[in-house]
Amino acid sequence: MFKEIPDLLGPAQIAELKSIAAGAKFVDGRISNPYAKMKQNLQLHDEAAYQKSSSLITQAMFGHEDFRNYAFPVAILPPLMTRYAPNMHYGPHADAAFLQLGKIALRSDLSCTIFLNDPDAYEGGALRIQLGTRDMRFRGAPGSAILYPSNTMHEVEPVTQGERLVAITFIQSRIADSFRRELLYELNEVAALEGLRMAPENFTRMQLIQASLLRYWGDRP
Amino acid sequence: MFKEIPDLLGPAQIAELKSIAAGAKFVDGRISNPYAKMKQNLQLHDEAAYQKSSSLITQAMFGHEDFRNYAFPVAILPPLMTRYAPNMHYGPHADAAFLQLGKIALRSDLSCTIFLNDPDAYEGGALRIQLGTRDMRFRGAPGSAILYPSNTMHEVEPVTQGERLVAITFIQSRIADSFRRELLYELNEVAALEGLRMAPENFTRMQLIQASLLRYWGDRP
Amino acid sequence: MFKEIPDLLGPAQIAELKSIAAGAKFVDGRISNPYAKMKQNLQLHDEAAYQKSSSLITQAMFGHEDFRNYAFPVAILPPLMTRYAPNMHYGPHADAAFLQLGKIALRSDLSCTIFLNDPDAYEGGALRIQLGTRDMRFRGAPGSAILYPSNTMHEVEPVTQGERLVAITFIQSRIADSFRRELLYELNEVAALEGLRMAPENFTRMQLIQASLLRYWGDRP
Amino acid sequence: MFKEIPDLLGPAQIAELKSIAAGAKFVDGRISNPYAKMKQNLQLHDEAAYQKSSSLITQAMFGHEDFRNYAFPVAILPPLMTRYAPNMHYGPHADAAFLQLGKIALRSDLSCTIFLNDPDAYEGGALRIQLGTRDMRFRGAPGSAILYPSNTMHEVEPVTQGERLVAITFIQSRIADSFRRELLYELNEVAALEGLRMAPENFTRMQLIQASLLRYWGDRP
Amino acid sequence: MFKEIPDLLGPAQIAELKSIAAGAKFVDGRISNPYAKMKQNLQLHDEAAYQKSSSLITQAMFGHEDFRNYAFPVAILPPLMTRYAPNMHYGPHADAAFLQLGKIALRSDLSCTIFLNDPDAYEGGALRIQLGTRDMRFRGAPGSAILYPSNTMHEVEPVTQGERLVAITFIQSRIADSFRRELLYELNEVAALEGLRMAPENFTRMQLIQASLLRYWGDRP
Amino acid sequence: MFKEIPDLLGPAQIAELKSIAAGAKFVDGRISNPYAKMKQNLQLHDEAAYQKSSSLITQAMFGHEDFRNYAFPVAILPPLMTRYAPNMHYGPHADAAFLQLGKIALRSDLSCTIFLNDPDAYEGGALRIQLGTRDMRFRGAPGSAILYPSNTMHEVEPVTQGERLVAITFIQSRIADSFRRELLYELNEVAALEGLRMAPENFTRMQLIQASLLRYWGDRP
Repeated sequence: MFKEIPDLLGPAQIAELKSIAAGAKFVDGRISNPYAKMKQNLQLHDEAAYQKSSSLITQAMFGHEDFRNYAFPVAILPPLMTRYAPNMHYGPHADAAFLQLGKIALRSDLSCTIFLNDPDAYEGGALRIQLGTRDMRFRGAPGSAILYPSNTMHEVEPVTQGERLVAITFIQSRIADSFRRELLYELNEVAALEGLRMAPENFTRMQLIQASLLRYWGDRP
Repeated sequence: MFKEIPDLLGPAQIAELKSIAAGAKFVDGRISNPYAKMKQNLQLHDEAAYQKSSSLITQAMFGHEDFRNYAFPVAILPPLMTRYAPNMHYGPHADAAFLQLGKIALRSDLSCTIFLNDPDAYEGGALRIQLGTRDMRFRGAPGSAILYPSNTMHEVEPVTQGERLVAITFIQSRIADSFRRELLYELNEVAALEGLRMAPENFTRMQLIQASLLRYWGDRP
Repeated sequence: MFKEIPDLLGPAQIAELKSIAAGAKFVDGRISNPYAKMKQNLQLHDEAAYQKSSSLITQAMFGHEDFRNYAFPVAILPPLMTRYAPNMHYGPHADAAFLQLGKIALRSDLSCTIFLNDPDAYEGGALRIQLGTRDMRFRGAPGSAILYPSNTMHEVEPVTQGERLVAITFIQSRIADSFRRELLYELNEVAALEGLRMAPENFTRMQLIQASLLRYWGDRP
Repeated sequence: MFKEIPDLLGPAQIAELKSIAAGAKFVDGRISNPYAKMKQNLQLHDEAAYQKSSSLITQAMFGHEDFRNYAFPVAILPPLMTRYAPNMHYGPHADAAFLQLGKIALRSDLSCTIFLNDPDAYEGGALRIQLGTRDMRFRGAPGSAILYPSNTMHEVEPVTQGERLVAITFIQSRIADSFRRELLYELNEVAALEGLRMAPENFTRMQLIQASLLRYWGDRP
Repeated sequence: MFKEIPDLLGPAQIAELKSIAAGAKFVDGRISNPYAKMKQNLQLHDEAAYQKSSSLITQAMFGHEDFRNYAFPVAILPPLMTRYAPNMHYGPHADAAFLQLGKIALRSDLSCTIFLNDPDAYEGGALRIQLGTRDMRFRGAPGSAILYPSNTMHEVEPVTQGERLVAITFIQSRIADSFRRELLYELNEVAALEGLRMAPENFTRMQLIQASLLRYWGDRP
Repeated sequence: MFKEIPDLLGPAQIAELKSIAAGAKFVDGRISNPYAKMKQNLQLHDEAAYQKSSSLITQAMFGHEDFRNYAFPVAILPPLMTRYAPNMHYGPHADAAFLQLGKIALRSDLSCTIFLNDPDAYEGGALRIQLGTRDMRFRGAPGSAILYPSNTMHEVEPVTQGERLVAITFIQSRIADSFRRELLYELNEVAALEGLRMAPENFTRMQLIQASLLRYWGDRP
């Protein structure tokens, strides 16, 4: 359901992203969705800065083993840095099923927020995800990321003080269905943790099961 | 994901169930799962008391409109009253896919805890459900119920003081998949809330969509 | 099931296509399917004319909002102009599942006839689609188009007088299944027509439902 | 899509049903759906008459080979005789996904109208089924039946003169999906018509294919 | 694919079945399939003997743990004793998808032959299953059984000497698809063999995976 | 299940491949899977030789009509020549679900061994495929190929004398599921063999069925 990755970015990467953000233009977030009245934030609007920052984050994602193991990523939309100043928020909404940016077109299976500044630097501004009659709030440490299914209702609560700086992106997974994706992640984890203790012929049987589930549930290349 | 029903049982029903529990025998919960070392609780073991209490709760469930709308129930295992005295707990586990009790056989899609005594009457004893790297805790008011997907890892944390009295049961839904079930619930809710404002021909189109989704996703009778 | 688009092409486009057709070579339609004895028509066989006419029609299709909303098109085979002189016809047949033309390969979900000349200019020549023990006939006005599922048995009845000029093409939809595709079209239409009257939170719920159905039923990019 | 069965009932059966209808009470059709404002007809309301008439029609259905071959029926709701006097009609609507009548619960895959009196005996009153931007009208001869997918929008147009007498029912098929059901019907028909001409080993291969498709697509008993 | 159970029946059961067979009437096998020209064998035709023998074998099947683990049986057609005298055979054929015998209706997922007499007591008479361009032959020891997917082309080769005595039956599995059924069998086997060596939390994760796969792939009760 | 193609390569092609193999470097097969302890063989490790040999074999595969009809191939991993000297073997293993080599990424549905030298030139070295409690062994003639589902447990038994020279590859099929792929192959074969004898309208119905099954079961381009 939820996957928090505490160390997606290291201090140097965070510093670089903050430096890029500091020197670049941010505009009203409705530029990318003019009809979304409940969207009140600022997003990076500088081609060079976008190219540089998104490429840095994308590389960090594909380079992070636990991220790859969990998300089975096949495509990542270039992450976009976003600011929330006081009173800004993004009301409850659903992420689109399919997204396109230039030549990258993908199905959004997982939504991802990468936290860039300290949660103590702002008040409010939690990512809130509805789970029926309950909800869950996220205000991560710098460099951490939260992954959650794109088909959940979620919002960014109003920032009441300070500034929230995050990057957001959307991931197409090899396995569209959340439950199945997490089940295979679990099986792979168990096989990795217990494999050495198993009789070799049973480990081989596990591998056949893992490959078969990936074949059943995974989109073809 | 989670559905809390605050008023599944009324005060009279709660009182009756407590009275049944007070006069009946409870035995080690491993009677119904002898291999589950992590199961340490007491469960009702008295045929007449079980018949009476389970029938009372089952009727309350089928009689509760919001429960029916959410769960699309086709079968409910007779709910079983369970006690947790201090130090008792039920470690993390998965509920079985298929359950049988006498002539009732069902697929467990939704698991349900009905809280019977005041959460102030005990310490600890939360129902804890894992959601990847996060979790969610439930300690409901008497008469309230929590529904959650049976394919989640969950546990009852140790009771440290007092006694926890609940009833637990398992529900086969017309719609096996949680996401689809909740999606149709949402669509039905929106149609109910907005139907009167809609042009009649559009409301009729909504009804065709609702019926078609139920037909696609619902198990046949 | 059937979608007639009355205004796919405007008068200027029709005139241009007719002018292209007037100056180009047409050959026996069996050139593209030599084993189809029941295929007796003439099809455009001139690279420049094909390039120009197919590009004009394809642009008109992708530029037509109601077409896009209905068909969820991801690929369109370059439309081919076809003539039926007296006694010509195309007997009952099924369209192939997969088609390839140069680098364009697609699954044919929807078949499309674009009518180019006046139905009064010829007799017979109806597109006839079988629906079990019933059928449906189409002889459209110039510039209109008819979309129907490729997995229906259909034919062009013999032209008995005059000449029938049409363009035909095949469309791969984001959503392969006809019933599901039309259901989502209907839901989107209702949301568009009734959205302004809805409570905002209910409109947002509708959007989550729409995105979720598209994600479930749509092919990944 | 549509299956018309010209001879579901013979003259004696029609006469018996008319005689039952003549002597029995009919009431406002909203008795079975009080919220359906667009439902204005009269339906049989007499237990003995219902028992007798529905049993007669059900037997005729299960006894009709082409009906069985086409519908793969597993359950039929007891057919209900319905009258439309002048100005009565049943506006556009969708049939429910699941129906229950006493102990019979079924998924409605196919809807069925059995015509009982002469179409010359009334004006208007056509069963009209929408097919996107087109529609199809049915006014059958006495004893004939029309089967159509329950997930289509349909209506009974106002009777303007005379009286329309029909029986209506709903069928759960072994194969829920219309396209797949009709495909297997077609394959079975071809095998039946061509089997004697085939090499025995190829006919046997056909039988394996037929059995396999039925196993894939059919609900289990 | 293939599951041979060497010890489905013990010596006493085999003796009892042979004794039942010796005293009962057998008739031409075409009695249960008059159109099957390639079916030339003799089958038990004695109600009491059938009742007794089928009940004995069915109990042995449901009582055999490895059979249950492999087949996930939900229904078994009463096994029928069958004899092949010299020159008898059953040509290549496909087993029907759905079978009915009295009140027992089932989908045949697995076909089963139980061998009752010594393979040295006859020549020929192998159960031959086609696997594309290869095949596999079975002539089992008394009391052994062979299970194979019902959707394979198979035959009984002509007996050239002696007599072949078997019982045959058909099994509806909880899991219709052969690959998925065997995959879950494998996973369950590995969990059973390796579970004690695993860290308890990983064994619990395995159990969640096992229950989830059964829920995904299993028919509801 | 199994498809043996006796004549995938002709004598000239076999000679050319042997000549390429004779002049090229082979290295320990663990180079492409360092963790596979049970992999003990030698594989071609020479870019030019790999390019030439794999291109020759791939062309032969796409050019072989029966291969195309059976496998519905959409991608083939460049076949790799492999040697097994005495004592070499490849223990039981499962092939990966997804494979990538340079720009070619594919789902492995079918695994393929192409035999290049005479089975009399070596002892042992059979390709052994497990089928539950049974297995099947393959030692093909030069130029022949064996296709089998990638989700089977298989191994190369130890070579005890001489040398085994094969090429191996993996095929993504239009139809992922083995049973469905083979069913459509069978239907296409029957239609091809019996089509001329059929009434034309029945042959056309068959074509609609064939196209529909390919559309249902085939991955989109």
